[in-house]
Amino acid sequence: MGLLTVGSVAFDDIQTPLGHAEKIVGGAATYISLAASYFTNDLKLVSVIGGDFPQEELDHLKSVGVDLEGLQIKKDEKSFFWAGRYHDNMNARDTLDTQLNVLADFDPILPDGYKNEDFVMLGNLTPAVQMKVIDQMEHRPKLIALDTMNFWMDIAWDELMAVIAKIDVLMINDEEARQMSKEYSLVKAAKKIMDLGPKFLVIKKGEHGALLFHKDEIFFAPALPLAEVFDPTGAGDTFAGGFMGYVAQTGDVSFENMKRGVIFGSALASFCVEKFGIERLKGLSNMDIIDRVEQFVKLVSFDAKLEL
Amino acid sequence: MGLLTVGSVAFDDIQTPLGHAEKIVGGAATYISLAASYFTNDLKLVSVIGGDFPQEELDHLKSVGVDLEGLQIKKDEKSFFWAGRYHDNMNARDTLDTQLNVLADFDPILPDGYKNEDFVMLGNLTPAVQMKVIDQMEHRPKLIALDTMNFWMDIAWDELMAVIAKIDVLMINDEEARQMSKEYSLVKAAKKIMDLGPKFLVIKKGEHGALLFHKDEIFFAPALPLAEVFDPTGAGDTFAGGFMGYVAQTGDVSFENMKRGVIFGSALASFCVEKFGIERLKGLSNMDIIDRVEQFVKLVSFDAKLEL
Repeated sequence: MGLLTVGSVAFDDIQTPLGHAEKIVGGAATYISLAASYFTNDLKLVSVIGGDFPQEELDHLKSVGVDLEGLQIKKDEKSFFWAGRYHDNMNARDTLDTQLNVLADFDPILPDGYKNEDFVMLGNLTPAVQMKVIDQMEHRPKLIALDTMNFWMDIAWDELMAVIAKIDVLMINDEEARQMSKEYSLVKAAKKIMDLGPKFLVIKKGEHGALLFHKDEIFFAPALPLAEVFDPTGAGDTFAGGFMGYVAQTGDVSFENMKRGVIFGSALASFCVEKFGIERLKGLSNMDIIDRVEQFVKLVSFDAKLEL
Repeated sequence: MGLLTVGSVAFDDIQTPLGHAEKIVGGAATYISLAASYFTNDLKLVSVIGGDFPQEELDHLKSVGVDLEGLQIKKDEKSFFWAGRYHDNMNARDTLDTQLNVLADFDPILPDGYKNEDFVMLGNLTPAVQMKVIDQMEHRPKLIALDTMNFWMDIAWDELMAVIAKIDVLMINDEEARQMSKEYSLVKAAKKIMDLGPKFLVIKKGEHGALLFHKDEIFFAPALPLAEVFDPTGAGDTFAGGFMGYVAQTGDVSFENMKRGVIFGSALASFCVEKFGIERLKGLSNMDIIDRVEQFVKLVSFDAKLEL
């Protein structure tokens, strides 16, 4: 089955201790769509860009199966732009500049052909925009996943709670889970957050892996220990895209299948951080991905024989 | 086979957000021995205590198989004492008081019956004392493991490097690995540290699990997500005791078997933090431990089916 994604398509300016990439293509929906394209080429994108966005990047998205009918192009305006600098350890970053541009008054309009999708990924955006997308669906999708961030908890708590009540899978990082639940223990945090609506919760812990919660069950996927993280930008979105792409392709929303989604999402994210921006998400082969997944399996595998 | 442990046997005063335990029994060698006792009751302890140490705690150690011939008792002196307070998140702590007492001039003397042990665990102590233990061994043990901390890197770097060159397994936490190697990436840190001597490196990441490195191989064991961490004191020592107890009992120093050691060590550590001090390390049944290990297995298990 296909996947409908809403989120930013944008430019980033990224400084890391290993280099500086000026005005490269980024945006949550870009990462999500590219990652998901390794699982399904029935992808629909709802976003907005300015006239400054490179045609060859749109052509690339099309070439991997992303339908762009839902992408608004405002010829006389500029695309969303974010500039940031990572600290030496890559685990923290400072925002140097944010120019909303076309995102400032983004009104997500779903083409008719988008309104019956079964799988919906709401990338990190203002909760009101995320809600507008849900409101336009003609039937309740099989699975709605949502990413958000502390910023929206600070300035749009009520709107965020309203949209979270309507989704199935929430994907946030550990800090955000703690802020949302006011609990330090992630187990306690997960219980409180699932009481807000989502039946599934993914807590992303960056270099420490990811946890998937459902009812009283917990699944943990490690992050692959990497010699070098080149650029962490988009890793969380790439995870989300790999996860939802896999789940949509299989059409199976069981906990057991979502575990596999977490593994595929983690595998895609481990590629993403190896180069600047979206570079590493282009041209991967199925074998590249399967090899990476096998590294995850090997990392936590041991020969049972656990008697005492 | 048996295990020889050297390390502190002491008193702790522990404040956590959940309570205050005044002058309870602690010390690295206490935690190590108790954890290891679930795997072997051929345990030898080299340490020093004052006349103030409770006889019933010594009796308990004896009852679980710990030989105390190597435990020096200085009747007119006081045992090592540490007081600390954990921060709200339990991931950081402040030392409020340290009284070396009998540890100040500790000279570890191995009884003759200790000098042919095959498995040796050198708990966190001044590197010079750790070296004295190695020097007294009559033959090269099959496996020597060592724990240390940033404090010794700061004040006794050369002595620490000298003893690290003589061991097989180094067990440190992620911050210590970064300080020792001057590398942020744990993969790069591990390579540099193994170049210093140890063939195996365990990097403990607290609530984020533990990594075992050997040559180009990496094994990762998660920490069990817990609703409540009551007192993290001794979790690292308990991990070390479970690990070395298991490896010593099996007599198998292969990487494959050490993976199982890491799982058992993690399981024991997950009990340790559930109550103050050593309380939870008393009276566990084999079934308790196997149940816990099965939770670890379940946490990372997924049904393969990873085609694309």
